[in-house]
Amino acid sequence: MTDDLTQSLAAYADVATRLEVDAVALVPGPNFTRAIGYSFMSHERPFVLVIPAEGKPAALVPNLELASWGLVGFDGAVFDWRDQDGYEVAFAALSKHLNIASLAVEGQVMRVFVHHALKRAQPDLTIIDGEREISALRMIKTDAEVAALKDAIEISERALSRTIETIRLGQSEKQIEQMLVQMLFAEGADDLSFAPIVAAGDNSARPHAHARENYAVQAGDALLFDFGARKHGFAADITRTFFLREVSDEGRAVYETVLAANLAGFDVTRAGVTAHEIDDAVTGVLEASPYADRIRTKTGHGLGREVHEAPYIMRGNHMTLPAGTVYTNEPGLYGDGKFGVRIEDDILITEEGCVSLTSFPKELTVLPC
Amino acid sequence: MTDDLTQSLAAYADVATRLEVDAVALVPGPNFTRAIGYSFMSHERPFVLVIPAEGKPAALVPNLELASWGLVGFDGAVFDWRDQDGYEVAFAALSKHLNIASLAVEGQVMRVFVHHALKRAQPDLTIIDGEREISALRMIKTDAEVAALKDAIEISERALSRTIETIRLGQSEKQIEQMLVQMLFAEGADDLSFAPIVAAGDNSARPHAHARENYAVQAGDALLFDFGARKHGFAADITRTFFLREVSDEGRAVYETVLAANLAGFDVTRAGVTAHEIDDAVTGVLEASPYADRIRTKTGHGLGREVHEAPYIMRGNHMTLPAGTVYTNEPGLYGDGKFGVRIEDDILITEEGCVSLTSFPKELTVLPC
Repeated sequence: MTDDLTQSLAAYADVATRLEVDAVALVPGPNFTRAIGYSFMSHERPFVLVIPAEGKPAALVPNLELASWGLVGFDGAVFDWRDQDGYEVAFAALSKHLNIASLAVEGQVMRVFVHHALKRAQPDLTIIDGEREISALRMIKTDAEVAALKDAIEISERALSRTIETIRLGQSEKQIEQMLVQMLFAEGADDLSFAPIVAAGDNSARPHAHARENYAVQAGDALLFDFGARKHGFAADITRTFFLREVSDEGRAVYETVLAANLAGFDVTRAGVTAHEIDDAVTGVLEASPYADRIRTKTGHGLGREVHEAPYIMRGNHMTLPAGTVYTNEPGLYGDGKFGVRIEDDILITEEGCVSLTSFPKELTVLPC
Repeated sequence: MTDDLTQSLAAYADVATRLEVDAVALVPGPNFTRAIGYSFMSHERPFVLVIPAEGKPAALVPNLELASWGLVGFDGAVFDWRDQDGYEVAFAALSKHLNIASLAVEGQVMRVFVHHALKRAQPDLTIIDGEREISALRMIKTDAEVAALKDAIEISERALSRTIETIRLGQSEKQIEQMLVQMLFAEGADDLSFAPIVAAGDNSARPHAHARENYAVQAGDALLFDFGARKHGFAADITRTFFLREVSDEGRAVYETVLAANLAGFDVTRAGVTAHEIDDAVTGVLEASPYADRIRTKTGHGLGREVHEAPYIMRGNHMTLPAGTVYTNEPGLYGDGKFGVRIEDDILITEEGCVSLTSFPKELTVLPC
């Protein structure tokens, strides 16, 4: 095992110790990729890496992945299985080899069929949800990780700049979305962070709207973009809302309210702030406005290998946030049947304050289109 | 509730009856989308639709999705929850409302945190993995679904044609991959079916290789593309392997063996064939060749809303396949440290035989590059 891999896996052994369980299990996904430095797909095939609090890690690997697994430099026990034979024998062998009584898993990543296979192999195994503690290792970003995220964000912002120049009244949301996606890849995205949201008019009032093929954008519409490029394994997430040709007084007032809320988030952010305090500052601005009934979401979430990860920026989450944390500051107001406005920046927390990794202008913009 | 929705959900109630459980639960993913006609994201938020064997369905919905949920036309009970409050109260209310003792879930879609939340709300609830029976409803494709898949495949094949014209010796696998992705979106893809595999030389011997930035393709290399566009919610999946400038005798012999295996799959496919019989015919050709030690995978898998779905085309799976099933026929031979060849078509089973939805030429092709 390389020194890097040994050191990386030791952090998960420490999580097992802190959680007072015998081992931590990882399945393909962001923690798995971070732990071993390679990404794998799982689909219908169980693939599990187990890191005990004490002793050597072990893995259950689909046979067809062995050639790729060889690149990882893993020297623990490997139990492989072939599609034709099924995976029950491999789970039984893994269980016997490990000889553990309790296991922490990633509750938001591991699927039920793997959970059930673990329990069939060892019915008395205690499985707890260690998602929070396991994923917390991803919270403080290294310089290299911040650089990857910056690359993803810069690609996203260049793609947005190029896209808004092409918008014309009468286009469908779907046409605009397809232009955005092409620009993202033309600018160097490895993948999309998520299926983009491009929503105009009343559709922008749905926080997770889908672009419509049958709605032609018109003068006065709000037009909301929520999207991001993925680069080097890291996911950008940015939202900007524009108005087309003209903006109503209500549009302007709502926009300025959301912008003030977004700025309030920057004001309170520095190492040691709690997630509660940020949401309280941001949502407080929205609540104090005439549009408090249009609040639908919390302020934001952590950002990194996953688009949504810890910390979740909401009241009641009194976790203090260290320097190196990246979160999304994305207040919004959603007027059902009318329009919605959201402004989202990706913020890096520093000892002295914070840095916006996103730099796309956010003053109210009326596109000439 | 619209008649369409009522009818769609009734099929899941029937699954509950067949599985002898009180209800079926769906979470955002392919079955959920098929059931209600709209797709939702879930991320860190539980979102569950429960369809009882008898009586009205109910749903647990994140509050911020209520505006989108309104489009679905659902008239069962809805238990929503806000990020700030957490979801435990909503699960308890759902559980009380349902008053059930047993529940079938999608084991390959539902994640452990939702399973645990269901169990916390009702510790004596029996949860079984109903993945196979629930997802089986997706197996027979309607004409509209086949048409969507055809669109996705045509986009993919046009993108491949355009990409191979741009290949030059000395390019990296990553450069070729980025060209392919741009072409997919330029041709109209809504999304990628999965992160494409573009692998040359020894990397092509890894069934799930990642494109390298630091390997320049050279004369004599095998170059494998495994990729697909997603369109209208359906995912294409196609593999072609080319040789660059020249091909060795071994390369030719391996290629012809894989092609013969692929063709053998067509020969045995008609309504009523079993998955076992197809794999036996295809893998049998590979086993009878001098390259039997290079077999790594089963023949293929079902294809539709998911890239990998039932039926799994492998020995031991004696499920008979009805007309309307779409599966991938993708034999391959993988010479560790040398090269790999895979040829993958998407096949629609008909009463009389089968139809290849993919039509990209598959005779051995040496690219002039």
